[in-house]
Amino acid sequence: MLLIIPFILVLIGVISSNVIDNEVFDCGSYLSDALRNEIASYQPIVNKIIKETVKGRFKSTTYNELADFVDKFGNRLAGTENLENAIDYMLEKSKEKNLENVHGEKAPVRTWIRGEESATLLQPRRQNLPLLGLGLSIGTPPEGITAEVLVVTSFDELESQSERAKSKIVLFVPEYTTYGETVVYRSEAASAAAKYGAVAALIRSITPFSIASPHTEDAHLLQRIQKRGQKIVVNLKMEAHFGDVKISRNTVAEIKGSKNPEKIVIISGHLDSWDVGQGAMDDGGGAFISWNGLVLLKALNLRPRRTIRTILWTAEEFGYVGAKQYYQDHKNETKNWNFIMESDEGTFNPYGLEYVTGDKGACILEEVVKLFAPLNATTTERTDSVGSDINLWLSDGIPGAALLQESSTYFWYHHSPGDTLDVEDPVNLDKNTALWAATAYVVADLSIDFPRD
Amino acid sequence: MLLIIPFILVLIGVISSNVIDNEVFDCGSYLSDALRNEIASYQPIVNKIIKETVKGRFKSTTYNELADFVDKFGNRLAGTENLENAIDYMLEKSKEKNLENVHGEKAPVRTWIRGEESATLLQPRRQNLPLLGLGLSIGTPPEGITAEVLVVTSFDELESQSERAKSKIVLFVPEYTTYGETVVYRSEAASAAAKYGAVAALIRSITPFSIASPHTEDAHLLQRIQKRGQKIVVNLKMEAHFGDVKISRNTVAEIKGSKNPEKIVIISGHLDSWDVGQGAMDDGGGAFISWNGLVLLKALNLRPRRTIRTILWTAEEFGYVGAKQYYQDHKNETKNWNFIMESDEGTFNPYGLEYVTGDKGACILEEVVKLFAPLNATTTERTDSVGSDINLWLSDGIPGAALLQESSTYFWYHHSPGDTLDVEDPVNLDKNTALWAATAYVVADLSIDFPRD
Repeated sequence: MLLIIPFILVLIGVISSNVIDNEVFDCGSYLSDALRNEIASYQPIVNKIIKETVKGRFKSTTYNELADFVDKFGNRLAGTENLENAIDYMLEKSKEKNLENVHGEKAPVRTWIRGEESATLLQPRRQNLPLLGLGLSIGTPPEGITAEVLVVTSFDELESQSERAKSKIVLFVPEYTTYGETVVYRSEAASAAAKYGAVAALIRSITPFSIASPHTEDAHLLQRIQKRGQKIVVNLKMEAHFGDVKISRNTVAEIKGSKNPEKIVIISGHLDSWDVGQGAMDDGGGAFISWNGLVLLKALNLRPRRTIRTILWTAEEFGYVGAKQYYQDHKNETKNWNFIMESDEGTFNPYGLEYVTGDKGACILEEVVKLFAPLNATTTERTDSVGSDINLWLSDGIPGAALLQESSTYFWYHHSPGDTLDVEDPVNLDKNTALWAATAYVVADLSIDFPRD
Repeated sequence: MLLIIPFILVLIGVISSNVIDNEVFDCGSYLSDALRNEIASYQPIVNKIIKETVKGRFKSTTYNELADFVDKFGNRLAGTENLENAIDYMLEKSKEKNLENVHGEKAPVRTWIRGEESATLLQPRRQNLPLLGLGLSIGTPPEGITAEVLVVTSFDELESQSERAKSKIVLFVPEYTTYGETVVYRSEAASAAAKYGAVAALIRSITPFSIASPHTEDAHLLQRIQKRGQKIVVNLKMEAHFGDVKISRNTVAEIKGSKNPEKIVIISGHLDSWDVGQGAMDDGGGAFISWNGLVLLKALNLRPRRTIRTILWTAEEFGYVGAKQYYQDHKNETKNWNFIMESDEGTFNPYGLEYVTGDKGACILEEVVKLFAPLNATTTERTDSVGSDINLWLSDGIPGAALLQESSTYFWYHHSPGDTLDVEDPVNLDKNTALWAATAYVVADLSIDFPRD
């Protein structure tokens, strides 16, 4: 029996991406002066959106709405009644704000319950090792698993010591480089250890920084003990188990397009969270800039040609469960989808957009971001994937974007008890809301459909 | 019954101090050229100490010894057998290293046991509030205390709302300015709340930064809930209680002076820690630069005119218990004490010394620190108190010093589970060890006694 019992929860939500060089395509030959001028002509509207959010009556409203929500519901694990109550709350709020076509769309979710969990160092001395089980792990027998520990720093090192892994708990202590590079130990450690007959796999926190917030530190302790040639014995207990399938919902609200309501621009984040922390950052911030951005456009009476749809995905943390269901249910409609955005890597100070488009789309976005000079958010990065849920559609060739923002501390808090409202900042949330709403509005209102090339 | 149950442990160990302006006294008229030249003549010896520590055979030894020690014993609460075993280990190690006059000196300690503790938000919703009881708190009844919460941001606000405090749990959420300023809420919150009939006092973490490492965040949560006009009910449980008086020991080792062995220069840190974290920073680092600094001088065969004594204090966290006993037991000897140093505010990158001396002493130290140019550690700060245990003697007019170092993150980890070896850095420990040992050596070897003016 092999268990995944690392020191911190699995990541489902950030996919490593590759930057694409824009230089090869000549926008000059594609973009007409007329189109260039049309995009520039949105500056007064964009300024109005920014002013209303940063200084006007929407100032701090994203933070305040998020605080009300997070403090009321706390964390929101998929499959819990608490998440369903939170979804009802958002549907109700959306109606209050006169958003359009407000409804939930069902998605079945296999529930998972963490239960109690512990890791205790027994040899060479007794010490509690505060662990956080990887989400969707399976549990141990009630008495736990007690076994000797083998510490390795890489898959290669395990390979070279494979004959020592049998019946052991293998602890992986890879050096943290980037999240994208190091997170492979979350997904692959268990099967790598299993191959050589290990009884469980532990991994260090995949984070650049921790204050015993589980918890690179103890991984380093075991590493030092092994270097001294001492035997390490650990007892692991986890009650983690899967439960029934429950029905959850993606939360949907719109501003219907004035000319082409069937054509869609989507702004989104996910409403569920892991069961530790408060899910204020992952993904409360992303969900609330998407939702409050729509509320803002509605309040400003800004109805674009095409429909803007806000979707608050459910069960993202369990593996894009809500998005996958939506993908199935809306297959026939996506030919009309113009653009899709998701914020799921924090809502820190924004400085622009990263996007996945063809060459022509890139030319348009490079013009659009110029409108965000008042926010100091005119940087772009073209890449091959953004966001998490929306990659389902991006891989089908539907263009999309995410925020560029100062997210260097994101993994300090990610999937940990540290994901609380204290991570979020009212001013940054205002700026992100403005950037998000303005991008959606301009793209949804352009005279041409967003190119898929 | 009033309980102190804040979100993080009491501080005993850092005393706020006031910087003293040096300009008024004219060193030119006090320091003879001969004395100035004598101090400067120590440069080759100081260079040797630095070279041996930073690049030579002592490189990384402070870190490695500290790692061996911390990993072997973990945290070391005063009154525990574990601390006594750790003291035996240090005495044994000191003998192995041929340190002189190695012995323990007894100090009785009233023990304190934390036991289990919890705080649970019951209204407006249920949430675990991870708390860390203030050291030396007394416990609750087994069923805990359940009461409504009153949130205040200051003593003044409590004063103005005093009629609302009766039978409540008062939560203080002061803004964190500096540790020295804000820590008053640790020591005074309980009695302030008691005055108005409160049943318990909670305080936010007195730290500038936390990752739910208990835990400013939840204090802010309760503050927001109160602002919304909702009733807050919390259940507090603590098993904390005092135990028997046990005998602990201050750990002493020396290099006897060649000319005036009865005259003493002391370098020190404390060996005990709180019962959370590993006490690697508070005060493993300070204890080990003091101890390994002496080992280094011994290994280099550097025997100064006066005796250098390393003292590893016991039970500092319970209120300088070991130092107070030592103060009583050595009253007759202190006329011969030349200088006393303690490191108890971290061992980060050092940049000089802060000191408590008279004007003449200041003139000498300003010359001594010039010797530390190879370490980039020539900054000084004259102040009215340094360290913790040693303030007992500094207030009697015995001159002393502590490290100036880049300690801005100290309170991120202080008295929390985050106080692990990962906070400590081998290179910084080397630099601190060299600075510490060289200062002690020069002061202990000068042709004149260190002035007490």
